[in-house]
Amino acid sequence: MELSLVRIAEVVEGEIIGDRNKYIRDVAPFDAAKGDEITLAGNAKFLKRIHETNAGAIIVPRDFQAPAKNIIRVDNPKLAFAMVSNLFYPPSRPEPGINSKAHIGKELICGREVSIAPFAVIGDNVTLGHRVVLHPNVVIGDNVVIGNDVKIYPNATILERCRIGSRVIIHAGTVIGSDGFGFAPDGEKYYKIPHIGIVQIDDDVEIGAGNTIDRANFGKTWIKSGVKTDNLVHIAHNVTVGENSVLVAQVVIGGSVSIGKNAILAGQAAIADHLILGDDVTVVGQSGVAKSVPSGETVSGSPAIPHRLWLRVQKILTRLPELKKKLEEIEKRLKKIKKLERENG
Amino acid sequence: MELSLVRIAEVVEGEIIGDRNKYIRDVAPFDAAKGDEITLAGNAKFLKRIHETNAGAIIVPRDFQAPAKNIIRVDNPKLAFAMVSNLFYPPSRPEPGINSKAHIGKELICGREVSIAPFAVIGDNVTLGHRVVLHPNVVIGDNVVIGNDVKIYPNATILERCRIGSRVIIHAGTVIGSDGFGFAPDGEKYYKIPHIGIVQIDDDVEIGAGNTIDRANFGKTWIKSGVKTDNLVHIAHNVTVGENSVLVAQVVIGGSVSIGKNAILAGQAAIADHLILGDDVTVVGQSGVAKSVPSGETVSGSPAIPHRLWLRVQKILTRLPELKKKLEEIEKRLKKIKKLERENG
Amino acid sequence: MELSLVRIAEVVEGEIIGDRNKYIRDVAPFDAAKGDEITLAGNAKFLKRIHETNAGAIIVPRDFQAPAKNIIRVDNPKLAFAMVSNLFYPPSRPEPGINSKAHIGKELICGREVSIAPFAVIGDNVTLGHRVVLHPNVVIGDNVVIGNDVKIYPNATILERCRIGSRVIIHAGTVIGSDGFGFAPDGEKYYKIPHIGIVQIDDDVEIGAGNTIDRANFGKTWIKSGVKTDNLVHIAHNVTVGENSVLVAQVVIGGSVSIGKNAILAGQAAIADHLILGDDVTVVGQSGVAKSVPSGETVSGSPAIPHRLWLRVQKILTRLPELKKKLEEIEKRLKKIKKLERENG
Repeated sequence: MELSLVRIAEVVEGEIIGDRNKYIRDVAPFDAAKGDEITLAGNAKFLKRIHETNAGAIIVPRDFQAPAKNIIRVDNPKLAFAMVSNLFYPPSRPEPGINSKAHIGKELICGREVSIAPFAVIGDNVTLGHRVVLHPNVVIGDNVVIGNDVKIYPNATILERCRIGSRVIIHAGTVIGSDGFGFAPDGEKYYKIPHIGIVQIDDDVEIGAGNTIDRANFGKTWIKSGVKTDNLVHIAHNVTVGENSVLVAQVVIGGSVSIGKNAILAGQAAIADHLILGDDVTVVGQSGVAKSVPSGETVSGSPAIPHRLWLRVQKILTRLPELKKKLEEIEKRLKKIKKLERENG
Repeated sequence: MELSLVRIAEVVEGEIIGDRNKYIRDVAPFDAAKGDEITLAGNAKFLKRIHETNAGAIIVPRDFQAPAKNIIRVDNPKLAFAMVSNLFYPPSRPEPGINSKAHIGKELICGREVSIAPFAVIGDNVTLGHRVVLHPNVVIGDNVVIGNDVKIYPNATILERCRIGSRVIIHAGTVIGSDGFGFAPDGEKYYKIPHIGIVQIDDDVEIGAGNTIDRANFGKTWIKSGVKTDNLVHIAHNVTVGENSVLVAQVVIGGSVSIGKNAILAGQAAIADHLILGDDVTVVGQSGVAKSVPSGETVSGSPAIPHRLWLRVQKILTRLPELKKKLEEIEKRLKKIKKLERENG
Repeated sequence: MELSLVRIAEVVEGEIIGDRNKYIRDVAPFDAAKGDEITLAGNAKFLKRIHETNAGAIIVPRDFQAPAKNIIRVDNPKLAFAMVSNLFYPPSRPEPGINSKAHIGKELICGREVSIAPFAVIGDNVTLGHRVVLHPNVVIGDNVVIGNDVKIYPNATILERCRIGSRVIIHAGTVIGSDGFGFAPDGEKYYKIPHIGIVQIDDDVEIGAGNTIDRANFGKTWIKSGVKTDNLVHIAHNVTVGENSVLVAQVVIGGSVSIGKNAILAGQAAIADHLILGDDVTVVGQSGVAKSVPSGETVSGSPAIPHRLWLRVQKILTRLPELKKKLEEIEKRLKKIKKLERENG
């Protein structure tokens, strides 16, 4: 494929400085890009090295100047470069059609141009929207409803009655709708609490590989629109994750937790059961959140405390050996004073 | 379905106060329950709001009074409510039968009313008890033995020679019997140590989604009866987990660890290799246990220490900036004293 | 099977003391071994109990003496025992052949004696080396290249264009080549960044069960030869893991991290994005590495600090209640002095 800078600038709403008719054949990283490729210099680190790239064109921030280079100036360079990458590498999709080696249950309601791979299993009374892609060995339980333009990668499992919105991506090996982890102790052993609820995943959500999202006891575990989860994330029963929140790898969300919009939970963060995290909350990696967090706050540590306090504590922690020594010197000094007093007394 | 309070009270061994002939059509949570539904008020939080629910009947603790409500008084309300939920929502099971799209190895010994879904794979010389349910795409290795009333959810894998008891539930995507992580360094690289042992899972165990349980070097990795694991738990080779112990999400158990009965390991807790944890041990979430823990103890922190000590340390940790300031003031004060002494000396 | 000590000693390059013609029928652990079995006494713990084993022969360190026992003296007992175990239990492999229930895409290039199980799915333009074993329900994407003597266990997924070397083992449920976790915020929501790169896994790598290894944005996520990963490990896009490094269970490696040779990352350790870890680095379990680590260093804690400093800090941490008390006593003492001064002043 070959695209002119004019065409690219149109797509990213950018302003060209340099050769408007330059043809571009690929996207490439800054140091590897060749003369017919476009690259990204989105921040100071790359901008100050801009003369080092051999790229035929460079996407830069709106206010940047670069004499003797073809540049496209945009408001959001990272976004613009992702959009251009998508021009050259549009998401692949298999040919539409239901492979004869798939297993299709009763009463499938199926949109247009659906693609179902070999050994995918569709339960009874399933609804699939238009252009849904089910990769090999995906299992869809009875009464599941899936919207339009959804992609589910190999060996993923969506259990009965769960509801998936449109433009959702579910990566390989993920499990949606496993039973919540709930038991009633009877004094000797545990009695399984039935989990009658479902998992609902709203539009434009992307769920990473190897996730597990448990169904609710009653009602639903609810992943709202635009949420993105990384790999190996666990979300327990009855959790709500608000719009556009981001859960990084190996995050654990305990039962009945409610998380607001635009939250960011960094890698291996854990949230204890029943807590409420507001909008725009940030949880630093490996933190263990043991009480609710108001909107806008950043918390760190295990148990998590406000991030600023945590930073101050951490700074002192590594100086503890020194502080302990000081304390011991003070003690000696005081003993000496005491001794002097006694002698003088 | 419709059940009278008399019938429900019989099942949960409860005492009815109110309309014994009231008919109940469903279970529901406290705030959502309608006039023909039964709900739970198991603790003070709900009991003091008992007049707010519209439920047609409420399960309460044995000694609770609630004039003008239909209540069932029981010893263990949470257990009773789970039992009633099970009356209305008995665990579903697919029709018995071996689907023609399953792959069955040689010499299958198969109990009555077994259900094997499409694209399940059964190795050679496998034994399946009565009423076993294998969901789609489950893989059972050669020489595996599975007891009665076992359910294995989609895309789970049970590798060769492992032994599964009766009434065991294994959730989707879980792997039982992968090789233990053992290598002999030869000075330059690692030589794989053969893992000849198996995994044995006893009766009434429930293993969550996305678990990995490794086979033993020799002998067995042993999950004893009644154990419950949440999602994404890792159990290494040669581990023993005692009866009715509970492993919450993302717990990691190192090689050759022995855990007693009724232990509770909270989310993301990790146990180092070769340790012994006694009966009734509690490990707080995210703790890293680096030495053995006697029966009955609760430990916290990474590395884990007795929970009481940990609580005291945590309390001081957040006050470290203040303590450091104090120390600095004391130092100044002492310098002043020294100066005075010199002047006076 | 039956092997003479002479034959065994040959394989492990050991020296026999005792009955050279002794026949051995199995390997067994120290306390369980019987008279026709060989065992291992590799360290002081077992060597001082050497008279307690009933084993017919014992593998011991090169300089060890044991009158009245058949011993084989070797340089590396653990390695030697693993090699002998392999003699008795050579890795099993299924019969060669492509099962008629597998799904094979177009243009498969296939080596000799390949074994493809039922319901495995091979995409288009795949290359498989000699003696590759694909277990049931494995999914191999389009244009994947796999070397010789590779084993891929059930329900694992290798996505399009990834490259796997020779003698690689990939355990059940693992996902290789899922999209990297990269999004460009557009002010309101997240725009998916295309991940055009691949995962490359070099020779002699073993990847545990339930791992997720993401494909690169550009170029490759690169697992170099001899690397071993335990279960439930997450490796993000564009990571490089150097030769013979070891990643223990639930380790998380952030995007674009570079790890040198022979590193050891213990269980649940996490490495933040873009860091560089040198050769022979050790990261203690549960540590959170937030800055780059030079070759040869050991780090601990979250955030990770040099291990020696961490040890000193930990020691003081548990004494904090005591130190706080001391500080308070000193304060009191100083007040007293002040008071005295005033009275004397």
